[in-house]
Amino acid sequence: MSSESQSQTQTPEEKAREQLIDLAAEFYDQFAGGDIPEMKLPTRTKSNIEYNPNSGVWVYGDRTSTRSANSVRGARKLLKAVYTIEFLANQLEEDRSSTLRELYYLSESWDNNEAHFSDQDESNQLVEDLEIVSKVTREDFHMRPEESGATLMGPLKIKEQTRRGEREIHCQEDVGEGGYQIPNNPDTIEFLDHDTDFVMCVETGGMRDRLIENGFDEQYNCLVVHLKGQPARATRRITKRLHDELDLPVMVFCDGDPWSYRIYGSVAYGSIKSAHLSEYLATPQARYVGIQPEDIVEYDLPTDPLADSDVNALESELSDPRFQTDYWEEQIELQLEIGKKAEQQALAARGLDFVTDTYLPERLDAMGVI
Amino acid sequence: MSSESQSQTQTPEEKAREQLIDLAAEFYDQFAGGDIPEMKLPTRTKSNIEYNPNSGVWVYGDRTSTRSANSVRGARKLLKAVYTIEFLANQLEEDRSSTLRELYYLSESWDNNEAHFSDQDESNQLVEDLEIVSKVTREDFHMRPEESGATLMGPLKIKEQTRRGEREIHCQEDVGEGGYQIPNNPDTIEFLDHDTDFVMCVETGGMRDRLIENGFDEQYNCLVVHLKGQPARATRRITKRLHDELDLPVMVFCDGDPWSYRIYGSVAYGSIKSAHLSEYLATPQARYVGIQPEDIVEYDLPTDPLADSDVNALESELSDPRFQTDYWEEQIELQLEIGKKAEQQALAARGLDFVTDTYLPERLDAMGVI
Repeated sequence: MSSESQSQTQTPEEKAREQLIDLAAEFYDQFAGGDIPEMKLPTRTKSNIEYNPNSGVWVYGDRTSTRSANSVRGARKLLKAVYTIEFLANQLEEDRSSTLRELYYLSESWDNNEAHFSDQDESNQLVEDLEIVSKVTREDFHMRPEESGATLMGPLKIKEQTRRGEREIHCQEDVGEGGYQIPNNPDTIEFLDHDTDFVMCVETGGMRDRLIENGFDEQYNCLVVHLKGQPARATRRITKRLHDELDLPVMVFCDGDPWSYRIYGSVAYGSIKSAHLSEYLATPQARYVGIQPEDIVEYDLPTDPLADSDVNALESELSDPRFQTDYWEEQIELQLEIGKKAEQQALAARGLDFVTDTYLPERLDAMGVI
Repeated sequence: MSSESQSQTQTPEEKAREQLIDLAAEFYDQFAGGDIPEMKLPTRTKSNIEYNPNSGVWVYGDRTSTRSANSVRGARKLLKAVYTIEFLANQLEEDRSSTLRELYYLSESWDNNEAHFSDQDESNQLVEDLEIVSKVTREDFHMRPEESGATLMGPLKIKEQTRRGEREIHCQEDVGEGGYQIPNNPDTIEFLDHDTDFVMCVETGGMRDRLIENGFDEQYNCLVVHLKGQPARATRRITKRLHDELDLPVMVFCDGDPWSYRIYGSVAYGSIKSAHLSEYLATPQARYVGIQPEDIVEYDLPTDPLADSDVNALESELSDPRFQTDYWEEQIELQLEIGKKAEQQALAARGLDFVTDTYLPERLDAMGVI
């Protein structure tokens, strides 16, 4: 549907290319008008993110910083930006793609030595800057991540547009036990058909495999998304699209420790570093299934004591605007009080089927999902 | 072929179960004979691995250590072993599986408190011991790893036996750009048909994606295996099977640094920790394509200086029996001399197509593969 209406107007590649060239044109106009070229960017700190009630996500506030060519250092930065824009515009025209690391090395081949990146942090940062200023995502620049996306398993049929033609794949019937591997840019996927009631994002491979072995996806018409720890952009993007386009509830199932709450946070709220992408990557309606500190008590799970770093992370979450809800304050304070954490696989202490026969059905029922 | 002949005799599950029960029976016989039960294991150190010229892999030597019930500590270890054997035997009978972490937590549900594992290192170690003593691999115990396998892309058609029936998948035509996800136990895969001339194992996701985008697998009838850094057992196992069953040359393409040579080593020689699995996991015929220290000089690649830890790792490789060949000694000494390392993606400094148009064809031609 959306791809048809797009083909009558502009492809995402054409649009991204245009935005990039507009950016270069701005520099040109500044030069032509006798002004020193500059680029304005939002300040990317914890104190400059704020809640946008319309989209339900956290975005950058009003504070900005300026990259200006009024110093050698600043001029060099803008030079690199212009070379990068040219590279990206050509890449889009040729319908090719590259990784952030390749871009860093590629700069060595540019004719102006001053334009070579001095390290990869610099080129990564520049690509993020260009994302923010052009309002085009890295994926639409055709920049691939190093990290690969995770896998899907469940009653969903998709069509993926690959360089080798279209592939129609049912994420239960046409895949092995490993599931369907999410491509780097999940916007090449179209959702064709599904029989899915909700999405279950799972932190660990062990638990993902447990749900699949126990047939949880079949019994509950659930699409299992493996987060693989801190989820890649591709994983967060497809999760958001599953929610927005198919109107599916998104549940997040992690270990019961502060690092896992951050995994939930990155699915639901996005990260500070990429708040400009929140509307593209975050699913604010995503809900946390567990392991909750409350579950540690209620189900008497095997635990480990909180380490100092865990306590610090929990306290930092208490002061994080994204975790300032009654639910999270209550759970985090309870955890600090009991001084314990538990992994999701700790549920195996009650038997291998406890998670799919008892824990998840009870939690999902309490949350009104099943 | 092999699956048919097996079905007339014993399934791998039945065989694994029998080996485990034989082990328990041995303890029983020792008891019955008035002997203190014990279990003999090879000593697992660098000084006790030796080259087996028949299989071409490194295996444990003759030195053994003994776990005996003649102390409370030893008796407790054997008690845990017996409980674990019972759990695994039941798991195989029910055709179920579990992760190492689940086993650790499951022990909490065993009726004898003395049998509970005190930490996960202990249960991991025990499963390795059982692998060694029973000569059954963890996969055949139906113990799943936490780490998932990587992906395949290339002209190969496989049949995977899943819990939900058989799936026939062509690893170019029936998968998205992410490729075919290797299942936890790749012995559930049967190779149906292929048009593959060689296997190319690639360390990084960025380079794997580069080869796929540039159509290297299509142009050279090459099966691209993504190693994802240090490869999971499933990835090493399928690589070995591709070599042994389809008689395909296996090439390994990594960064040019000591950590990447270890990745090659784990594909080709196996690791010290799992030398008992070398014949199951290692592909001694695997060959190292690059990045070679020689390439850094010859192709004038962008480099980083060797860190102290790199130098130490290179020196430790020089004293590692598995790297004591003319080739590796020459390359490692050259690298110590030039004091530099280079990533595989550094080839992008010569353009995005350099790796597939020039570097790999030159290297593979020099190695007699194409």
